[in-house]
Amino acid sequence: MTVETRTIQFHTRGNAEMTDITDQVREEIQKSAISNGTVTIFCPSSTTALTTIEYESGCIHDLERLYDQIVPQNQDYQHNKRWGDGNGHSHVRAALQGASFTVPISGNRLTLGTWQQIIHIDFDNRSRNRELILQVIGE
Amino acid sequence: MTVETRTIQFHTRGNAEMTDITDQVREEIQKSAISNGTVTIFCPSSTTALTTIEYESGCIHDLERLYDQIVPQNQDYQHNKRWGDGNGHSHVRAALQGASFTVPISGNRLTLGTWQQIIHIDFDNRSRNRELILQVIGE
Amino acid sequence: MTVETRTIQFHTRGNAEMTDITDQVREEIQKSAISNGTVTIFCPSSTTALTTIEYESGCIHDLERLYDQIVPQNQDYQHNKRWGDGNGHSHVRAALQGASFTVPISGNRLTLGTWQQIIHIDFDNRSRNRELILQVIGE
Repeated sequence: MTVETRTIQFHTRGNAEMTDITDQVREEIQKSAISNGTVTIFCPSSTTALTTIEYESGCIHDLERLYDQIVPQNQDYQHNKRWGDGNGHSHVRAALQGASFTVPISGNRLTLGTWQQIIHIDFDNRSRNRELILQVIGE
Repeated sequence: MTVETRTIQFHTRGNAEMTDITDQVREEIQKSAISNGTVTIFCPSSTTALTTIEYESGCIHDLERLYDQIVPQNQDYQHNKRWGDGNGHSHVRAALQGASFTVPISGNRLTLGTWQQIIHIDFDNRSRNRELILQVIGE
Repeated sequence: MTVETRTIQFHTRGNAEMTDITDQVREEIQKSAISNGTVTIFCPSSTTALTTIEYESGCIHDLERLYDQIVPQNQDYQHNKRWGDGNGHSHVRAALQGASFTVPISGNRLTLGTWQQIIHIDFDNRSRNRELILQVIGE
């Protein structure tokens, strides 16, 4: 049993951009010495989050709309009143969705379904370079 | 320290059916050689999800209603327009709730509270046989 | 590789009180022998949940409001009709947010972002002493 800490980097435009990170995670797992275990993917950020989805433009649009419906950008936020950076909705969305996601690894492969991809959602209101931490534990 | 990959299977009717999988997970943990560690339960699917709840008919009904309220089936979905399978709401609900859930194991037991059960939610719009992956890590 | 089970305790007033538990988790990690791995924080309860957020009063208020908007206390709940304890909304909110959260540990430190804290949300409708389980796995 061992632990390997790996990272992936990518650019996002923010504003709920959803990035399919499956291939980048898979490459890091394949480079690791770990055949069986788990990878915990972690956003060291309070305006981004992770989940899985069928990564096609319909589902992506529909999930974006959910956030527009339940956490709209254009209502008052106390965070915005205090800090003036206009991303109050980003913080709330990210807290709801969650910054951590764990996937099993079996035979050096992620155990994802056929139509299931891992996505990073950047809820912030500007473009950014992002780095995620992949904590791989196993044997 | 070791890793054991186990699976559980069950049938669901879909349409947000919530299945109490606690006993099936507990049986797999008891069959494993691992006394202390974690189990990551994972849905290899983009229309199902996991969480914990007090599994009684009131809570189950109330959580179903939440999904009917915030991700209603009867609005337009881009996914449905592209693919015609009518489960756009299922994908959005599953992405929001999350396909992965990790529970500590201590003394060969899940550390659940007295009134806390692990549930699988099948948000898809048809019945199905489902298989979940249990990745058990520990010693 | 080893596993250490630790706990933290604190008092909450309930009613969606959000407690910053970052320092308590950090202290337990520092006391542990584990430099690299993960900590799975777990609520053995069906009315509490975990996530990360920028812990400042604006974000806290805004996240509380989200729950008031999408899972209001003052609608009918089947749970309340059956059990009369008035915390139907607490169960639904906790199931949506999730009772388990995993954070990587690297160099004996949590890999949190600068403006990112771990919070416990007590959705129940009364004050309580709470205990969380920290399952630390690594080397």
